[in-house]
Amino acid sequence: MSKMVEVDGIGWIRNISLNLKPPSLKDNTADIDRLIRGLRDRFQLNDIHLSISQMDRVAHTLRETGYSVNTILLEDRNRLQVLEVKPNQSPPEVYGMAVDLGTSQVAIRLVDLVARKVVGESSVRNPQLDHGSDILTRIHFATQEGGLEHLKDLIIDVLNNEFSRLAREHHIKKEDIYGVSVAGNTTMTHLFLGLNPYRICREPYIPVVNRPGLVKAEDLSLHINREGYVLVFPNVGSYVGGDIVAGILASNMYRKEEVSMFVDVGTNAEVVLGNKEWFVACAGAAGPALEGGVARMGMMAGPGVIDQVRIDPTTRRVEITTIEGKKPVGICGSGLIDLLAQLFLAGMIDVRGKYVPDMCGDRLINKGGVDHFIIVKAEDSKTGKDLTLSQIDIDVLLRSKAAMYTILTTISGTAGISFDDLDTFYIAGTFGSYIDPRSAITIGMIPDIPLERYTILGNSSLSGATMALLSARARDEMELIRDRITYIELNVNQEFMNLFSAARFIPHTDRRLFPSVKVCEL
Amino acid sequence: MSKMVEVDGIGWIRNISLNLKPPSLKDNTADIDRLIRGLRDRFQLNDIHLSISQMDRVAHTLRETGYSVNTILLEDRNRLQVLEVKPNQSPPEVYGMAVDLGTSQVAIRLVDLVARKVVGESSVRNPQLDHGSDILTRIHFATQEGGLEHLKDLIIDVLNNEFSRLAREHHIKKEDIYGVSVAGNTTMTHLFLGLNPYRICREPYIPVVNRPGLVKAEDLSLHINREGYVLVFPNVGSYVGGDIVAGILASNMYRKEEVSMFVDVGTNAEVVLGNKEWFVACAGAAGPALEGGVARMGMMAGPGVIDQVRIDPTTRRVEITTIEGKKPVGICGSGLIDLLAQLFLAGMIDVRGKYVPDMCGDRLINKGGVDHFIIVKAEDSKTGKDLTLSQIDIDVLLRSKAAMYTILTTISGTAGISFDDLDTFYIAGTFGSYIDPRSAITIGMIPDIPLERYTILGNSSLSGATMALLSARARDEMELIRDRITYIELNVNQEFMNLFSAARFIPHTDRRLFPSVKVCEL
Repeated sequence: MSKMVEVDGIGWIRNISLNLKPPSLKDNTADIDRLIRGLRDRFQLNDIHLSISQMDRVAHTLRETGYSVNTILLEDRNRLQVLEVKPNQSPPEVYGMAVDLGTSQVAIRLVDLVARKVVGESSVRNPQLDHGSDILTRIHFATQEGGLEHLKDLIIDVLNNEFSRLAREHHIKKEDIYGVSVAGNTTMTHLFLGLNPYRICREPYIPVVNRPGLVKAEDLSLHINREGYVLVFPNVGSYVGGDIVAGILASNMYRKEEVSMFVDVGTNAEVVLGNKEWFVACAGAAGPALEGGVARMGMMAGPGVIDQVRIDPTTRRVEITTIEGKKPVGICGSGLIDLLAQLFLAGMIDVRGKYVPDMCGDRLINKGGVDHFIIVKAEDSKTGKDLTLSQIDIDVLLRSKAAMYTILTTISGTAGISFDDLDTFYIAGTFGSYIDPRSAITIGMIPDIPLERYTILGNSSLSGATMALLSARARDEMELIRDRITYIELNVNQEFMNLFSAARFIPHTDRRLFPSVKVCEL
Repeated sequence: MSKMVEVDGIGWIRNISLNLKPPSLKDNTADIDRLIRGLRDRFQLNDIHLSISQMDRVAHTLRETGYSVNTILLEDRNRLQVLEVKPNQSPPEVYGMAVDLGTSQVAIRLVDLVARKVVGESSVRNPQLDHGSDILTRIHFATQEGGLEHLKDLIIDVLNNEFSRLAREHHIKKEDIYGVSVAGNTTMTHLFLGLNPYRICREPYIPVVNRPGLVKAEDLSLHINREGYVLVFPNVGSYVGGDIVAGILASNMYRKEEVSMFVDVGTNAEVVLGNKEWFVACAGAAGPALEGGVARMGMMAGPGVIDQVRIDPTTRRVEITTIEGKKPVGICGSGLIDLLAQLFLAGMIDVRGKYVPDMCGDRLINKGGVDHFIIVKAEDSKTGKDLTLSQIDIDVLLRSKAAMYTILTTISGTAGISFDDLDTFYIAGTFGSYIDPRSAITIGMIPDIPLERYTILGNSSLSGATMALLSARARDEMELIRDRITYIELNVNQEFMNLFSAARFIPHTDRRLFPSVKVCEL
């Protein structure tokens, strides 16, 4: 894999070649002072630093090379830190790691900072899942004796392992990695930094820090170059984290005149509305109806997981596709949305989501008094058991989709924006990567606007982290985005509950909101 | 001991009390961001930092105190580093250590940075003396396997020990020490920082670094507050170090219109001439005649060491005083100068420094063909042996004093300044602390100018280090002083040797240069 990243401006970790005049009796400036003078002349900056522990080695390199060197620099506003000095002959090897710290999944990219391209990528399970799949359980674990330290060690270890693996795989040295950019939600950011997340979930919801800024990798026990730095995305507050800021950076919506909507559906769901002047944001976790809701809709994507479903409205034959074409093992969120939409369009469930026995035929079975629809029969599944969708599953799904639609309606209403006014509707997050907007519209989860206005971003947090790793300008912009976001506490009042109840139907009680959804009427 | 230090301006390590508005649902700024916002409003600075490892503890303190705290800050130009945050109630305890890293002796002051006064002082032998009493031997040792590390460890250990001892003695905690300022010659500064001094003594005489700036104490293994910093005085070059820059800072000559002369007589001798606009400097070590010369003139000051000598020109009775009035054990440099001057004034040595047997009487004995003058008889000395001064000792002394006077003459001549034009003649350094200018003039070591123009500074390197520890302005000025100094390589040519030969007489071949020296003619 090797892909260019489109990003403006120059990097904040850079390779600069310097040819300095060697010392003489007439110019006996010390070696390190000579290097710093050369950089000062080049950058017109006074605040230039090199750590003491490097000085001897760097002085040696300067002398050996006749004062002709490559310097690897970190530019932090008006301050320049010299990370490394190497002979000019050797081709500059400067790498970085972009990290999306997800609650469930950690995604990493190895980026060549000279060629400005992604050279490797990996995604691993967040080992903290063993101590709570949701944020609240994990925060609770962190407040126990040694818990915070343990959670921190888990995430640092998994990053160090992945960094090593990626480096080995791509034949680069870990010392050639000089920067890491990290985007995660507020709790994950705290756990990564070893900061107590206790107050994030308690009124008045105050994190320890929102803008940790640049941190020395060594101080976090991340094994990259000894002088390397970690750029941590700023959080907006307890419920809107650096992953959302990174997502908005990746979406480009912060540069548009027109208003766009951004939805990140991961373990939680966060929604952001705005343009180049303002942003309002709210988080699903704030609404009790959504608590863990969207995340429960099926298993994580993986080989054999059903990601697409089609039902012929005439024959009512169920056709599925699985990831990597393997024998089916279960169904993921996007598959569930497809399934629900297809069941509805085939008349096999009604507007309330109840199974219609006459239409389902022998695919509908009753287990313990609850209707189950057989998606895949035991003989065709990898597990040797029927893969089914129960009436209860559907109810959970409908509650989740209703919550999502209600949140979208509420935030739009607060900002006085109609869905029709949206320039683009961005769907981000692991869950969102596989979603079929047509199906999501059909079940009334997302607004019924023209399909071409939907953009699937995939892991936008990782994309944003990659951009911020590559560009000093993106670094500045992430700060601007952060400052521009106003967090709206979702008020789960009677009005919200009324909207929520209306949205629990398929696609909605008010069919006029979904004119494109046409049910096959027999 | 408790003495105020006269120094301009505010400190760069400061204690600032902050009363922040506690968070609420309306203002949910994170704890650390809130602290930084408070400081930003107060200082109008954007570049404010707190290390990640402190954030949890600081957030806890903020919450516990209702956001009313004392902050201990390091101000580094436009950057502010938060070193510590404590409850507002506790009286601020903020201390620093000023260090003069001498080749032979290390002097340390414990400074109260709130009361702005020196509260303790100590002086210890530099343990590196075991690996060479002079700089060249020590540089040689450093280039051997493990030598540099060993020399560094020795100096760091002795500092840590003294810091502990001073802290204990004055009932302060080591964590309450936030800053250290260190002044030393270029080689000592390199050894302290663990930098290879090899090239300092080899053409074209290029140190590794001249301006190391601020270094984290932790990075040097100095045990003060974990967040504490070390300010290292900048060197001018291989032969003029931070100790001289500190001395000039302490002398105040850098603010005067008039030209002054500064002589630091320690293990080496450095001479600086200048005013508020320019400085020229040269170092005794550069002239082979002075190699280790001045330093060999007697033992270090200590109990029982003869520091003053008077000889009655009529009776030729020798009167001595010793340090602390103890039984005499030997003689130090200032005592030797006194002795030589008194012997000369009493006619017991001639203008060439040769003993005049008729005048010396039974105090002159011959050992192995060399004349020895008995200063203290065996029965009166602590050692039980005669304390003597041999003809060879006198010759060494005269070579040293001649070298000194020649250097002073040369540097003045280079700058076109006559001794009579000097506003002040500063004598600095351990050796210089006890010197009697009258005696030094008598033997022709220093110019024959009115005695009131002489100022004995004592350990001006330590005084300068103390000032720089206390004042941000002094920190800036030390940089200005450094940049203003032009180092002059002493050219030991025929002219120098002619001057040197003429200066080997007492007080000088040209008696008109020393009109005040009146010999008792019998």
